Amino acid sequence: MTFINKLDAAWAANDSLLCVGLDPDMARLPAQFQSAPDGIYRFCTEIIDATADLACAFKPQIAYFAALGAEQQLERICAYLRDKHPHIPLILDSKRGDIGATAKQYAREAYDRYGADAVTVSPYMGSDSVEPYMEWRDRGVIVLCRTSNPGGSDLQFLEVNGRPLYQHVAQLVADKWNHNGQCALVVGATFPEELAQVRAIVGDMPLLVPGIGAQGGDVNATVTAGRTDSGKGMMINSSRAILYATAAAGEDFAQAARRVARETRDAINAAR
Amino acid sequence: MTFINKLDAAWAANDSLLCVGLDPDMARLPAQFQSAPDGIYRFCTEIIDATADLACAFKPQIAYFAALGAEQQLERICAYLRDKHPHIPLILDSKRGDIGATAKQYAREAYDRYGADAVTVSPYMGSDSVEPYMEWRDRGVIVLCRTSNPGGSDLQFLEVNGRPLYQHVAQLVADKWNHNGQCALVVGATFPEELAQVRAIVGDMPLLVPGIGAQGGDVNATVTAGRTDSGKGMMINSSRAILYATAAAGEDFAQAARRVARETRDAINAAR
Repeated sequence: MTFINKLDAAWAANDSLLCVGLDPDMARLPAQFQSAPDGIYRFCTEIIDATADLACAFKPQIAYFAALGAEQQLERICAYLRDKHPHIPLILDSKRGDIGATAKQYAREAYDRYGADAVTVSPYMGSDSVEPYMEWRDRGVIVLCRTSNPGGSDLQFLEVNGRPLYQHVAQLVADKWNHNGQCALVVGATFPEELAQVRAIVGDMPLLVPGIGAQGGDVNATVTAGRTDSGKGMMINSSRAILYATAAAGEDFAQAARRVARETRDAINAAR
Repeated sequence: MTFINKLDAAWAANDSLLCVGLDPDMARLPAQFQSAPDGIYRFCTEIIDATADLACAFKPQIAYFAALGAEQQLERICAYLRDKHPHIPLILDSKRGDIGATAKQYAREAYDRYGADAVTVSPYMGSDSVEPYMEWRDRGVIVLCRTSNPGGSDLQFLEVNGRPLYQHVAQLVADKWNHNGQCALVVGATFPEELAQVRAIVGDMPLLVPGIGAQGGDVNATVTAGRTDSGKGMMINSSRAILYATAAAGEDFAQAARRVARETRDAINAAR
């Protein structure tokens, strides 16, 4: 089964466009995990179990593991997800980008080592920095297009042939890089009108949409702008708002995560 | 001592603009290292010892370690370099790029975990994806500008306000991102006239120049185009041509690496 088919099935099975981001910031974990040698693994797998029936994908952010030297815990989290919730796509958020020979190594990292169904990549180095990932025909390649951060405009909003660079990237991916139907795009929720412009360029291509939750994007505007005609086509990511959802002392973090995940999924569905 | 000062001292001490890239491809290592559990560490440290008096920097490419789950060997290689050759700058080639909170984690990975003097980063996500690295005031941030691969033109050569995007990136880094004097740029050797245009924009800013050796860039044209008025200003990288230099059966790989490193350094110096 390809990444796109697996995503399509997860959208339907869980009636959800919610992607749960796994960004385990040690300073924000519940105390019992901060002191445990496998605390990150235990925290993330409890989050996964608490939200797996509400999500269309899980997305570990590798930087949080790399900063701590916790790659082996990430390997175990990915293996756990594939074993316990095999129908939920696993997206490795690593935003790699390098020349072909090096990209091949990064593809091995994402697909073979971590078993990811899809990986995020940067478009700055062009086609041959993305092509090696396509050799894994059943996996997905999610290309940065319009990012949700303030500095995203520095390059992405530069005018190229009468339109901003991010639209040029969307066109390039839709017309050329997606020749095997393996591509998706990252488009932030903080600019709904730009999300709509990308949707108009790329047809039914899936969009990974960060920026709701802690980053402040509006759910209704995001869904209206980014959905396909069938009301799907998006993986709307929330990380910190779900992982660190505990609102009162004594509230169980996993129950709190489930509560916010359900509220977010339902808010997304109300806008579909 | 800052990265820029350390680089300046290494240029002078070793009379060299050569950066030795560490891209340990398991399939190409001498047989005695392929079967050893710490084979990558042993191979890379022998290369380091064989070339340290000929180099102005070492640059491990993290993808080759990540594909194999060999981060601990990379940690040990970096520690060895800092211990045995503390005057040679260590550049972590990871080309990271992400939102501010995540970039902070990648900065910790590069500077605190691996002890790198500088790290390569992608400009696509803009200023706040680069700024967190600047908090480590004694370290360097090497921004992708014009890359040496064929697909580099896909985005970098797009026309923005009458000039290609890569020149816009060079200007942006020179005028804004380099406010603490911590920045350098990646500019490939495969396009010497473009290297000259970047040099004209950025003044004396150091340039990391991949693309000679296995990638085919011409040394004379590269040095003429990219040097500063003082005949320095460049870290000219060679990886595969040095690491896998053995020309005849039975030739020691480290001696072969030293031979090619010396030839490359001398060819660069002849063109200064």
